[in-house]
Amino acid sequence: MKLALDTTQNSGSIALATGERLLYSAFFDIRITHSETLMPAIDHALGFCGVSKTDLREIYVCNGPGSFTGLRIGLATAKGIAFGLSIPLYAYSSLELAALSASGLGRNILVAVDAKMKEIYYAAYSSDLKEIISPRVAKPEELGKLELDDFILCGSAFERHATLAEFSGCRASMLSPAHQFIGAAGLFYLAEKLPDKHTAQNLADLEPLYIRESTAQAKLQS
Amino acid sequence: MKLALDTTQNSGSIALATGERLLYSAFFDIRITHSETLMPAIDHALGFCGVSKTDLREIYVCNGPGSFTGLRIGLATAKGIAFGLSIPLYAYSSLELAALSASGLGRNILVAVDAKMKEIYYAAYSSDLKEIISPRVAKPEELGKLELDDFILCGSAFERHATLAEFSGCRASMLSPAHQFIGAAGLFYLAEKLPDKHTAQNLADLEPLYIRESTAQAKLQS
Repeated sequence: MKLALDTTQNSGSIALATGERLLYSAFFDIRITHSETLMPAIDHALGFCGVSKTDLREIYVCNGPGSFTGLRIGLATAKGIAFGLSIPLYAYSSLELAALSASGLGRNILVAVDAKMKEIYYAAYSSDLKEIISPRVAKPEELGKLELDDFILCGSAFERHATLAEFSGCRASMLSPAHQFIGAAGLFYLAEKLPDKHTAQNLADLEPLYIRESTAQAKLQS
Repeated sequence: MKLALDTTQNSGSIALATGERLLYSAFFDIRITHSETLMPAIDHALGFCGVSKTDLREIYVCNGPGSFTGLRIGLATAKGIAFGLSIPLYAYSSLELAALSASGLGRNILVAVDAKMKEIYYAAYSSDLKEIISPRVAKPEELGKLELDDFILCGSAFERHATLAEFSGCRASMLSPAHQFIGAAGLFYLAEKLPDKHTAQNLADLEPLYIRESTAQAKLQS
């Protein structure tokens, strides 16, 4: 039995799978902090599926970029469970996870998620999820300077930042929100699609993928 | 607040949304009958989201085709809630729901779901979900006789029936299972995309979309 969780964005999601079969997945965007919802959601999922925590053999987690607090909660929870049960933990980026929704359609993918403070985290991938532009942070308008052709755009940032909508003119098209629904269950698919990245993480070494430093750290240094 | 549910296939799913925002969705494929899982799943969703049943204003249900027992349970539950709360009920077909995952990609869609007894239910839609072939039941090999060009194939049947894989040769391509994840939450999107079908159903008139008669009825008549 495998457990996956993603709390890197405002919304959260968890999933349970056995072998290749998805048993359960839940998505929630209820404006209560992940610290209050994540463990109850995992607990309910196990109970609902009649699965004991000792049946868990692998944990998958999304380690950012995204909400700093959210990704710390997700990573801390995943590490805690992996440590407690002595099972391996696998981590994938939230941008890879978001790009999965647009993969396999034969076009390159530009993916962007909200970074708060009027910024976005973005990256670009080929249709089979090879990295073209590594994850970075930028003002939305900077994306306009990328010379893109025949890209699919996906990720939550494209819904929130009106300036990004300009892309629709330049041979790039938006993936409908209706297609961007996979959530944490996508981490199981990523593990299949990107097996070279599918190496068990050393719990002590696994860090959140912050991309930019926190406002608190920036203040401390200035 | 809106509630959506789909129990027409082996797996089930439910979703809660307010206005345009999805609050919660859950998918489950745990080989316990929908009669045992559906109400507890709805009850948990409401509790998890801090929503009272009296906050519900609309119900959306998938009325088939699919598992006869499953779609009866879904429809009966949805009608019961709609009746009890005096709120409108909207129904969409499971084939429209499955086709949603492949909509908006600029290609026609052939969608098929498992019909048990070595048969499938299928239909075809344009990229914007206009019906090209109305829902029907067939042996999988009959699909091979359709002359298709540049179709996207989606729906659970394509994973289960090896004969359907032949299509990949004839300018039709499979939508990856990773893209077919929307579940009951898709009913909210269908209501937006197909507003002409978005008419409140008369509870007494709303029938399951069986497509073929049940084995029991067929025996009775012979």
